[in-house]
Amino acid sequence: MTKHPRTLEWIGGPDGHVRMIEQTLLPTRHEDIDVRTVPDMVDAIRRLAVRGAPAIGVSAAFGVVLGVQEHAAGNADQAIQAALTAADELATSRPTAVNLFWALDRMRAFAKGLAGAADGAAVLDALHLEAKAICDDDADRCRRMGEFGATLISSGQTILTHCNAGALATAGMGTALAPVYTAHDQGKRVAVFADETRPLLQGARITAWELSQAGIDVTVITDGMAARVMGEGKIDAVFVGSDRITAAGDVCNKIGTYGVAIAAKHHGIPFYCVAPLSTVDPDLLSGDEIPIEQRNPSEIVNGLGKQITPDGVAVYNPAFDVTPAALVTAIITEVGIIEAPNEAKMRAALARGRAAE
Amino acid sequence: MTKHPRTLEWIGGPDGHVRMIEQTLLPTRHEDIDVRTVPDMVDAIRRLAVRGAPAIGVSAAFGVVLGVQEHAAGNADQAIQAALTAADELATSRPTAVNLFWALDRMRAFAKGLAGAADGAAVLDALHLEAKAICDDDADRCRRMGEFGATLISSGQTILTHCNAGALATAGMGTALAPVYTAHDQGKRVAVFADETRPLLQGARITAWELSQAGIDVTVITDGMAARVMGEGKIDAVFVGSDRITAAGDVCNKIGTYGVAIAAKHHGIPFYCVAPLSTVDPDLLSGDEIPIEQRNPSEIVNGLGKQITPDGVAVYNPAFDVTPAALVTAIITEVGIIEAPNEAKMRAALARGRAAE
Repeated sequence: MTKHPRTLEWIGGPDGHVRMIEQTLLPTRHEDIDVRTVPDMVDAIRRLAVRGAPAIGVSAAFGVVLGVQEHAAGNADQAIQAALTAADELATSRPTAVNLFWALDRMRAFAKGLAGAADGAAVLDALHLEAKAICDDDADRCRRMGEFGATLISSGQTILTHCNAGALATAGMGTALAPVYTAHDQGKRVAVFADETRPLLQGARITAWELSQAGIDVTVITDGMAARVMGEGKIDAVFVGSDRITAAGDVCNKIGTYGVAIAAKHHGIPFYCVAPLSTVDPDLLSGDEIPIEQRNPSEIVNGLGKQITPDGVAVYNPAFDVTPAALVTAIITEVGIIEAPNEAKMRAALARGRAAE
Repeated sequence: MTKHPRTLEWIGGPDGHVRMIEQTLLPTRHEDIDVRTVPDMVDAIRRLAVRGAPAIGVSAAFGVVLGVQEHAAGNADQAIQAALTAADELATSRPTAVNLFWALDRMRAFAKGLAGAADGAAVLDALHLEAKAICDDDADRCRRMGEFGATLISSGQTILTHCNAGALATAGMGTALAPVYTAHDQGKRVAVFADETRPLLQGARITAWELSQAGIDVTVITDGMAARVMGEGKIDAVFVGSDRITAAGDVCNKIGTYGVAIAAKHHGIPFYCVAPLSTVDPDLLSGDEIPIEQRNPSEIVNGLGKQITPDGVAVYNPAFDVTPAALVTAIITEVGIIEAPNEAKMRAALARGRAAE
C-alpha cells in the first residue's frame, strides 16, 4: 500500500489526544502537533493547521471527545453537557465546511442518546468510539472512491488535479487523489500535474508534498498553464474534489476548477469529480444557488510573502466556482461512478447510499 | 488625454541620457532611474527594470546613442564603430525579444549609412534623432492600435486582460491596453479585470499599477478566476498583446493566454489580440512551430518571497503559450482590424503595413 501521509490520528485511549500534521508549515517543514483541548482544536482548524472538509469533520468529532475528558469523573449528564458545549465551541471554528456541522450533529445526537449511561467515564468511552468510527468511516469512503476511480486510470496515464483533495484533506487517502493512490498500488504507472492553485497554493504546497512523499511522480504548474499542458497532449484525465454538489450534479469546488473543466472539454479530456455522497446537497438543483464565499483580498495581495498589487487597487477573491454538470464526465462516490450526472442519477445514488448505511 | 505612465524617455540633447521607470520596484514603489552608459542599459534590460518587447527595442536604440557619446569628439568612423560595438553589446541583454534585434538592426544600418558624415558629433546627432524616431514610431503605432481597438469598446463595458501589454511595455500607451486608454479618453466608461499572471505577476504588479495611475477602474484576480468572472457575466471582451503572431494568425503570448481564450470562446466573449505588425513572423504558419521558452522553475518556486513547493518536486515553466487563430476574434494592428484572421488576411495586412512606410 502506498504510504500516503496520515493527516490526523487519535493517540491512546479515551483519555488520549489528537496528533495532526501542522499543514501551515508545508511544504518546507513536516511537523506534527498534539492537540489536547477544545480551544486548541478550534485554533488548529481556524489557522488551517488542518483543512479539507472531511478532515475538519473528523477533527471536530475528536474535539468533542477532548471536551468531555475533564468531566469524565462526574456523572453521565455532566459529561453529555460537556460534549454539547464542546460541539457548540467547535462549530465556531469555520463557517463553510459542511462536514464540520455534519460531524458535530452526529456527535451531538450520539451524546444525547447516552443519557442513561452509568457515569461520565462511560459517556467518554462511547463518544471516543463514535469519533473513531467517524474517522474510520471517512478513511473507508476514501478507499471505496479510490477503487471506483482507479478503474478509470490506465497504466502510463497522467492526471491533472486542482487544489488539494488528497490524503491531507481527509482521514484517509483523499477524494480526488484516492484513485491515483489506488492505481499506483495496483502497479499502474500514473503521474500527476498539480495546479499550484492560487491564491493559497494548496496544489503547490500540499498536493505536491503528499504525492512526492508517496513516491508518485508529480509536476507543479501555475494555474494558467493547465490549458497549455492539455494542448501539448500531456493530460489523460482531470480529477478534482468538491465542497458541495447539487442534486443536478453541478460541482462547487476551489476557484479555478471551472476553467480547468472548460479547457478539458475543449481538448476532449474527461473531467472527473470525486466526493463522498455527504458532499451532495439534495436541496439545491442549480449551482447558481450556491453562495460563493468571498475571502479576504489579502490572500491574493499579501499571501505570498510580499505585496503584489498596488495600494488601493480592487481585488476580487471568490473562494469557489461552480462547474455545471454538462462539463462533468462523471462523479465518483463511495457507492459508484455516476456518468454524465443529472438529477435522476444523483438522487438514485443518494438512495443507494442511504440503503448501504 | 489619459496620463498613462511614461515608461522611458530621452532627457536632454544628443549628450543626454535615458530616464526610465524602475519596474522591478512596482507596485509598491515608483522610482525613475537614469541610464547613462551601455553597460547600465544592458543591466537595466537584463534585470527587467524595463520589459515588454517594444519598450526593450526603444531602450536598445537609445543605448546605441549612449555608446557613441564618448566617441563624439573623434571622427565619423570612430563614432560609427562605437555605435556598432554598442549594438553588439546591447544584443546580449535578452535572447528572445524580437523588437530588441529589430531596433538594433535599424540602428546599425542607419549608422553605416553615416559613413560620409563630417565628424563624430554629426554621427551622434543623427543617431540621436533616429533613436528618437524609433521611440516616436512606437508611441504612434500604439496610438493607432488604440484608435482601431477603441471602436470595439462601448461605454459601460469591462475588459479582461492577461499579463501586461500596456504603457509599461512600450514607449507609448501600450498594445492591449491602448484601446482601453483611448476609449477612456473618448469619455467611455471602461473597467478592467487584470489576471495577476503567474508566475511573474505582471498583471497584479504592472497592469494594475498603470491603470490605477491613469484613473481607470481595475480589479485584480488570480488567473484561475478568469473563467468564473466570465461566467458571472462581468466581462464583455478580452484584450491581450502578443510576442509573436504567425502568418496564419496563431497568437503566441504570455502563458495563461490560451486558457483565457478557450474560456472566452465557451462564454461567447470576443477575444482580441492587439500587436504591431512587427510582431507578425511571416515565415511561420502554425503556432506549433514557435519555440516556447522554458524558464527557470525558481520563478514559480521562489518568485514570491517564500518557497511554495517541496524540495525536489518537478516544476514545468513554459513562458508562453499559443492561441490558435480559430479562437481569435480579431487581431488589431496599426493598419487596422483583422477579423477572423487567416493567412490571406494576415499577408494582406503585412502588405498594407509595408505600403504605409
